Amino acid sequence: MNILLVLRMLCSILLVEAASMVPSLGISLYYGDGDFLPLLYTVGLILLVSLPGFLLARPADRNLRGREGFVVVALAWIFMSIFGALPFIFSGFLPHFADAFFESVSGFTTTGATVVAHFEKMTHGIAFWRSFTHWVGGMGVLVLTLALLPKISDRTAHLVRAESPGPSLSKIVPKMGESAKILYIIYIILTLAEFVCLLLVGMSPFDAGIHALGTAGTGGFSNYSDSVAHFRSVGVDVVMTVFMILFGINFSIYYFIHVRGWKDIRENDELKWYLAIVFIAIFLLTVILVPYYGSFGASLRYASFQTASIVSTSGFATDNFDLWPVQAKMILFVLTFIGSCAGSTAGGMKVIRVAILWKQTKREIRRTFQPRKVQPIRFDNKTVDENMLHSIAVFGFSYIMIVILGAFAIAMEGKYDLITNLTASLTCVSNVGPGFGAVGPAGSFAGYGPFAKLISCFLMLAGRLELFPMLVLLHPYVWKKS
Amino acid sequence: MNILLVLRMLCSILLVEAASMVPSLGISLYYGDGDFLPLLYTVGLILLVSLPGFLLARPADRNLRGREGFVVVALAWIFMSIFGALPFIFSGFLPHFADAFFESVSGFTTTGATVVAHFEKMTHGIAFWRSFTHWVGGMGVLVLTLALLPKISDRTAHLVRAESPGPSLSKIVPKMGESAKILYIIYIILTLAEFVCLLLVGMSPFDAGIHALGTAGTGGFSNYSDSVAHFRSVGVDVVMTVFMILFGINFSIYYFIHVRGWKDIRENDELKWYLAIVFIAIFLLTVILVPYYGSFGASLRYASFQTASIVSTSGFATDNFDLWPVQAKMILFVLTFIGSCAGSTAGGMKVIRVAILWKQTKREIRRTFQPRKVQPIRFDNKTVDENMLHSIAVFGFSYIMIVILGAFAIAMEGKYDLITNLTASLTCVSNVGPGFGAVGPAGSFAGYGPFAKLISCFLMLAGRLELFPMLVLLHPYVWKKS
Repeated sequence: MNILLVLRMLCSILLVEAASMVPSLGISLYYGDGDFLPLLYTVGLILLVSLPGFLLARPADRNLRGREGFVVVALAWIFMSIFGALPFIFSGFLPHFADAFFESVSGFTTTGATVVAHFEKMTHGIAFWRSFTHWVGGMGVLVLTLALLPKISDRTAHLVRAESPGPSLSKIVPKMGESAKILYIIYIILTLAEFVCLLLVGMSPFDAGIHALGTAGTGGFSNYSDSVAHFRSVGVDVVMTVFMILFGINFSIYYFIHVRGWKDIRENDELKWYLAIVFIAIFLLTVILVPYYGSFGASLRYASFQTASIVSTSGFATDNFDLWPVQAKMILFVLTFIGSCAGSTAGGMKVIRVAILWKQTKREIRRTFQPRKVQPIRFDNKTVDENMLHSIAVFGFSYIMIVILGAFAIAMEGKYDLITNLTASLTCVSNVGPGFGAVGPAGSFAGYGPFAKLISCFLMLAGRLELFPMLVLLHPYVWKKS
Repeated sequence: MNILLVLRMLCSILLVEAASMVPSLGISLYYGDGDFLPLLYTVGLILLVSLPGFLLARPADRNLRGREGFVVVALAWIFMSIFGALPFIFSGFLPHFADAFFESVSGFTTTGATVVAHFEKMTHGIAFWRSFTHWVGGMGVLVLTLALLPKISDRTAHLVRAESPGPSLSKIVPKMGESAKILYIIYIILTLAEFVCLLLVGMSPFDAGIHALGTAGTGGFSNYSDSVAHFRSVGVDVVMTVFMILFGINFSIYYFIHVRGWKDIRENDELKWYLAIVFIAIFLLTVILVPYYGSFGASLRYASFQTASIVSTSGFATDNFDLWPVQAKMILFVLTFIGSCAGSTAGGMKVIRVAILWKQTKREIRRTFQPRKVQPIRFDNKTVDENMLHSIAVFGFSYIMIVILGAFAIAMEGKYDLITNLTASLTCVSNVGPGFGAVGPAGSFAGYGPFAKLISCFLMLAGRLELFPMLVLLHPYVWKKS
């Protein structure tokens, strides 16, 4: 283990985190409701801890090897979440560490599950930082670090791969630092576009900022206890529905539209599957909910918002869907597993994996009666490599196994019923936010004890980093001397 | 498709079913409570339908090819269940087809889920036939047919493979007909042993017969509405706990113990995993349940019975475990997925698959930081073939996908809550019997409508035949002319 290199990278990432607190400092100064010092102390503490390491650690070998990359990613997310939790503690908003850490992890992993019980106590600077963690975590803090400090290490491709969602992030341009910059430019443009649209439909600038950041990162934190239902505005619902769907799409598609036009899109199988899932879910939910809401219009409005919210793993709510008929809840339950496209800011298993697993199941059926026939699986007009297929199948099973083992661990606290514990684990791993029962859209994770909260933090991080980087940390080999 | 051969095989299997009704006819005559004629009519009808086909269908080619084998297995189970339902209908015990078919499928697939609401109306002959379906379905009706009519077709190995639980049933002796006979002899000896033990702990001969048949097939039908809790007997609980665990073990192990002694057992990884799962679950449940039952003894008794019942996928109950603390329910939930050993009469994913999937997940973690190192997976001191690993991974995901899609379909009826619908599907696919909520040990499937009942039948059959034979029936290629 190249300790010096790992240390230097971790310190750089923390410096980027300190920089990412500057907008919150500005907001805090502007509103002046008493959260400036807690934020400032945090920035100071981060600088105190990370600047010496950044300046003094001079690794002789700047080649980041495989296991080091995973260790950097996993540790970066843990330390970032710890420091990100400090403003909540210092300001007295969430005085207990488990609560503040949960909120911070939930923010960075873009889960949006909350332990906040008193939204009226949330000051502007704290609320902005809470939502800004979504924005930073959505695209990835390592991607941001590489965009800002491209020369931090050689061979960073697998670092970005470890942090980026989806089985095969292709570099969009040859240089990783360039790719990171392009992704962030797209990200900023889309976020600003939503911000402007939300202003146009009547949101205040602060609320528009909070909800644009939460949508962009597909996080789901709102500054109101009843989430987006607070606004009771069709305009807000429509704008957010559209942008949640847009943020669930692979960002490189936007780049390729910009560079090469619309040609490539027609060949993108994942996008087709994604849009098909979204529209089928909206259709089914609308039909199911007509008797519940009494009109087709209302049904379509709530169905499409909630579909977009769950499929993009944002987790905003315009109504308490835990009270919906069981058919509707079952659809949301299934969507929570799937998530959105690889290379977006969303969580879940990712559409591309679900689609390829579906094709593999069909092949396995055909194989039972044609065992000797070679049956390649094609995606995006290319044959998918058998090793990749095997990995995806193991990933699919591991994903659900972690959801079940996570529910098992959470349930060991003895709180709540089966469906609460099961969907608490699922919503954490999929980075959605709300589940059903006590962790439903009208509830929160506040009722759990510190043990279940820390397990949930692990599950959110595991989900955000696509399981293996976090699991790697638990493997003894990684900590052996090479 | 060799229609004549398929027809002849189906007719032979139905003839075996008719023969398997003879014991019930005897019981019915002995008790004389009015169910002799319904059983006799059923036998007559089966003979009327199948004898002409058996005698007249003379296929020129007696070579059973792959897809024909799967079609025979899938259709045999469907027709067998239809004819097996007739006594329930004719006797007026379950007059609606969906109910009677559900009960018959639940019997043959050894699920043990029931739609019976009035146990006091169940006559002796009907009760015996209901439990006898467990016994016939447990080891497999095709295995029974091959044991009785070994010359029915050439190349029957894949036929048995399609019906037998687990990824790799090795023939225990070179001839399939011989293997089938040996398996049935072991099965009969173990069933009789349990029958005698149950008599010794004070059960009436009829009750002992019913519960021995239900345990042997790992089915779970009882002739009392409160299942085994009815007897309030420690002796009964202990005997059934031990035999449920025994019937969850691969039967070929008993044969090899008989032939070669205990040597091979020490090398059987699946058995080690199975016993480890059983003992860890009993330990955890006992600890969790001490406050619930107030004493260690009672806790151990209920914990070990319920562990054995769920892990062997029998589904008997000595208490309403739906009222247990959520930690205990979560353990049972996880056990419902796993099931027992391949080559036993039990359902679930099978321990061997879960163990190999666990090893694959561990390998995938190692691979993230050692991508180029070849890392074979060993089981039973042998390296497992990569294609087999890939198949098992796809099976693992498909299994859970079918549980979720099944829950989705069941929920479309709009009845009950999420956890009822989810565990109804799971308990059907895993052939356990009870789930949680409305389908818990104190409830039944009686409250569902015909649609959910038929979906459940499909799920039970898919689970019993290990997914693919039933799914093959849905594939258009199978019905194409070759």
